[in-house]
Amino acid sequence: MKTKRILLNSRPQGMPDESNFEFDEQEISGLEEGQLLLKSLYISVDPYMRGRMNDTRSYVPPYKVNEPITGGIVAEVVECRNKKYKKGDVVMGNLPWQTFILSDGNGLTSIDPDLAPLSYHLGILGMPGLTAYCGLLFIGEPKEGETVVVSGAAGAVGTVVGQIAKQKGCRVVGIAGTDEKVAYLKNELGFDEGINYKTTSNIKEALEKACPDGVDVYFDNVGGSFSDAVYTLLNKYARIVVCGQIALYNSTSRPTGPRVEPILLTKSCLMKGFIVSDYADRFGEAAKELVSWVKTGKLQYEESITDGFDNLPEAFLGLFKGENTGKQLVKVADRSIQV
Amino acid sequence: MKTKRILLNSRPQGMPDESNFEFDEQEISGLEEGQLLLKSLYISVDPYMRGRMNDTRSYVPPYKVNEPITGGIVAEVVECRNKKYKKGDVVMGNLPWQTFILSDGNGLTSIDPDLAPLSYHLGILGMPGLTAYCGLLFIGEPKEGETVVVSGAAGAVGTVVGQIAKQKGCRVVGIAGTDEKVAYLKNELGFDEGINYKTTSNIKEALEKACPDGVDVYFDNVGGSFSDAVYTLLNKYARIVVCGQIALYNSTSRPTGPRVEPILLTKSCLMKGFIVSDYADRFGEAAKELVSWVKTGKLQYEESITDGFDNLPEAFLGLFKGENTGKQLVKVADRSIQV
Repeated sequence: MKTKRILLNSRPQGMPDESNFEFDEQEISGLEEGQLLLKSLYISVDPYMRGRMNDTRSYVPPYKVNEPITGGIVAEVVECRNKKYKKGDVVMGNLPWQTFILSDGNGLTSIDPDLAPLSYHLGILGMPGLTAYCGLLFIGEPKEGETVVVSGAAGAVGTVVGQIAKQKGCRVVGIAGTDEKVAYLKNELGFDEGINYKTTSNIKEALEKACPDGVDVYFDNVGGSFSDAVYTLLNKYARIVVCGQIALYNSTSRPTGPRVEPILLTKSCLMKGFIVSDYADRFGEAAKELVSWVKTGKLQYEESITDGFDNLPEAFLGLFKGENTGKQLVKVADRSIQV
Repeated sequence: MKTKRILLNSRPQGMPDESNFEFDEQEISGLEEGQLLLKSLYISVDPYMRGRMNDTRSYVPPYKVNEPITGGIVAEVVECRNKKYKKGDVVMGNLPWQTFILSDGNGLTSIDPDLAPLSYHLGILGMPGLTAYCGLLFIGEPKEGETVVVSGAAGAVGTVVGQIAKQKGCRVVGIAGTDEKVAYLKNELGFDEGINYKTTSNIKEALEKACPDGVDVYFDNVGGSFSDAVYTLLNKYARIVVCGQIALYNSTSRPTGPRVEPILLTKSCLMKGFIVSDYADRFGEAAKELVSWVKTGKLQYEESITDGFDNLPEAFLGLFKGENTGKQLVKVADRSIQV
């Protein structure tokens, strides 16, 4: 049988485009003992992947040119010669962008298909949800009555951050790029205020109005000049959670801006970068609480699902245009085997 | 009797000069019940005072124009109508730049004159020593075998930071502005390497050579472009202690530079500003350990002592020219009463 694949065709300079991806087909031969054949159901596209397209050392190794892009995938076991799994199982892992994948079972995690929609395991119950939970609670440490500002607030991580902060009794201000997203944050997710950074002429003034008591926690998914405006409003002992810098990912040179050190110094602030795996030893408690919040409706969750394997590059590129609300996914196939 | 005073004459724009200070004399009348008359012995000049000359909110309130500069002073009680003190006592406090000071006793701390030279209470046993101790150990958390870089290494704080880091088993690299200071750090204080930032043409190359295993803790007293070079060498989970930004204190506009957030993000680094009073509840343990280290010779300590009250402005201005090695003080008078 054949699988479609998407390879890194070339490393982008600045903003990536369709030409950086290449489609091909590959023959998959029969399974050896210990192997299983996976059919991709949902494939995740995430901003951090942009960094892996560069040939620079980072927290995850770079993709190789002429090899498949890899990322979070939920897949179904459609053939199985591995004793740990059986036909019809649903699994998750860091896997290549392919319609079918031959695996030896290493690095796969079983999913309970009755827990929640399968796609949730790439979002609120997966990497983005854990990122929001660990970054906000273990670095940001929000306290009741404090003000929490979230940039990229309508994204997969930001929507969860804001809702957890609300549960902790904070005033929550979200920043997003369309009026629809701002309305969604306020009306559906319970954010106290939202700012459309694309249409607001004076961001600093808007922030001052939205944060009359200053900013205690800034959960930053975006970076750049918006962060500079937030920094001027930081309270004494504020915490800045550096989770993403999507505004800078496509920079071709090292970006410059006002120095933050004098502010951190005079306000005794903490600024901390992280990757979710830094908190791997706390995933158990985090996942348990996230599941219970989703089940009891305390945590709303939205997905942007693009249909079809062939549209993967387009869905990925859309992340940098601010097109998605909530977690962006690509649906590749339905589950074929109901056990 | 009369006291000399030094007032803030005008707020400096950029680098301060003698014209920002004004000398005058004031009559001190007799003591009321509860008051005591202090004679200044040693007056501390510190970089943070530059910030107080501006009319901006910071961690300490600004000085007022036409009022005396204030700061750390060790003084002798020469007349006393306060029951808590007696003639001949030595005290320390945040006091006005005057040769004689009328006090109601509030905010004064008694000094044991047999513990160490009196001036030490403005340095290694006072604010700079506590700053070094708390910043390095409570934020930097250096571990055996790690590399610690200190900027402003020959200053009152830097000399203590480097020596504590050596005691913790770290490789210590100090940055200073003259060859004499670099030699002092290496030969007298036991630093592993020193870099003269004024004569080294390629700072990044010099740092790479001095830190073959990267940088785990960066204790920053200086800020600016030197910090940018250090940031490129940070290891995963590195800690940046933002203690001072003397290179930026005289800036008239908000300084810019390469953004640090992408580095903090990809290396999971922590950056934290502080003021020593954030750790007031731990001063007891800190002071006890500092005293024992000084007494047993584990901590070397150097002072630059300028003689004469009239030379206070000059000694203060010298801080920004990198003139001092160790703690800069002004000696105003000898103790007159031996009890």
